[in-house]
Amino acid sequence: MPTAAKRAWIDALVAAGLREIEVGSFVPARLLPQMADIEAVVAHALSHPGLRVMALVPNLKGAEAAFAAGVQKITLPVSASEAHSMANVRKTRAQMVDEVAAVVYARQQHAPQVVVEVGISTAFGCTLQGRVDEDEVLRLAAQLAAAGVDEVGLSDTTGVAHPAQVRRLFTRLRSEIGHLAGAAHLHNTRGLGLANCLAAWDVGVSTFDASLGGLGGCPYAPGASGNVVTEDLVFMFEAMGVHTGVDLPRLIAAREPLRQGLPGEPIYGMTPEAGLPKGFLNV
Amino acid sequence: MPTAAKRAWIDALVAAGLREIEVGSFVPARLLPQMADIEAVVAHALSHPGLRVMALVPNLKGAEAAFAAGVQKITLPVSASEAHSMANVRKTRAQMVDEVAAVVYARQQHAPQVVVEVGISTAFGCTLQGRVDEDEVLRLAAQLAAAGVDEVGLSDTTGVAHPAQVRRLFTRLRSEIGHLAGAAHLHNTRGLGLANCLAAWDVGVSTFDASLGGLGGCPYAPGASGNVVTEDLVFMFEAMGVHTGVDLPRLIAAREPLRQGLPGEPIYGMTPEAGLPKGFLNV
Repeated sequence: MPTAAKRAWIDALVAAGLREIEVGSFVPARLLPQMADIEAVVAHALSHPGLRVMALVPNLKGAEAAFAAGVQKITLPVSASEAHSMANVRKTRAQMVDEVAAVVYARQQHAPQVVVEVGISTAFGCTLQGRVDEDEVLRLAAQLAAAGVDEVGLSDTTGVAHPAQVRRLFTRLRSEIGHLAGAAHLHNTRGLGLANCLAAWDVGVSTFDASLGGLGGCPYAPGASGNVVTEDLVFMFEAMGVHTGVDLPRLIAAREPLRQGLPGEPIYGMTPEAGLPKGFLNV
Repeated sequence: MPTAAKRAWIDALVAAGLREIEVGSFVPARLLPQMADIEAVVAHALSHPGLRVMALVPNLKGAEAAFAAGVQKITLPVSASEAHSMANVRKTRAQMVDEVAAVVYARQQHAPQVVVEVGISTAFGCTLQGRVDEDEVLRLAAQLAAAGVDEVGLSDTTGVAHPAQVRRLFTRLRSEIGHLAGAAHLHNTRGLGLANCLAAWDVGVSTFDASLGGLGGCPYAPGASGNVVTEDLVFMFEAMGVHTGVDLPRLIAAREPLRQGLPGEPIYGMTPEAGLPKGFLNV
């Protein structure tokens, strides 16, 4: 996606009312060339005063680059599955906890205002190793909290979570680490994305990762696809009377720069296709 | 869809473990020519001993034909929206309640073993008239219960329902008519189908209408589309540990006769596309 298209897309999302956007990843350009322009994208995003600019970083080196670029929040993926951890970042889980501790230390030294989030990948299951033990997920969350991160979220990287599991695991996460319990990052791989978001909401989660048009996946998790569609998620909450601050017609309009920037990429979303119901008003 | 394909499709669904199938509608062939073979389809479905054979009937005449054909359960659509009622069956709501009472009387005379269900269409909103008053839905449910029907369900004909509304309305339905409160018939028009099913399940609903591949819509409700996809619904419940009695691989295999019988018709479903998660076993 050309840098200009990324800028236009961010502008459209901000115009729709989004106040936190993960604009890219600080990863080596030789591994993910599509992220080579991350500094320029961050610089543009920072020109929007009301926006919290967030980026993914896989390690200390990425975090230092993100701090230097002025990013306001970073998110690190730490896998609950050892197999996915090795495939995704070529480190064991224990090594990743050490890496996160080093990032938190660097943050304290050089960028104390930056929020550090960890999303626990494959928290609900893994395409590589299958079942993931819930106790291990919670142990990992406790270790990350002890390492000093500000938020620990749970990610259904490969779309295997179900509502009962989402309720149970987020409830346990909150008992384990209290107010550090963070976002629900849920995929729609098997169509359960919104049901899982509802389940998380029911047990007190109020931060949800989503992507416009359901764009997404993970290059290192076979079969991973389809983040929760932002448009449908916002429609669900607004319909329920939950104020999201997002203007739905403008959010749907933000699909246009995405489409232009990534021609040929399939873009999902039932609400944009069906349109808003007759008489529907954002909260 | 040729009659032979309908037969093969029913066989495949029965093989997957479904025990109640709405096999068609008793409507004039000049209005819906695709239902002209309904008697033959019912006769074939009745050859499966474990199956409860169900059909939609719009009025007394259809009910009498269904009784004569040996149908074991009928469902009548009664709209909560006056505008949809006129468009769908060319009768007012009050006339439809009278019609239902006549059907119940005929059942008592000629086919006392047949179960009579009413699905209240547009219970959550209507594309023709917009908002639908909840008190009116409940009043209608009470009238139908008084008319002697066995089950009253709620239908989101046009896909405008949201989880908070589903919980509220099914909870109110149960207070109003007790054990006569019936199925949730929810569409996936705006992607909320499974979230709405989960919401209904949370408040005690255990009967769900769905269609294989999300086939569906309503010829008389503009913009109506996409029933909840049976495959995804079964996956959600089985993943949650709720025994559905349905074998998922066989259910997914039942898409083949559907595809052959309706070539070119779009068939939806995320679970069939993604496949079952590694290590997944039906309950």
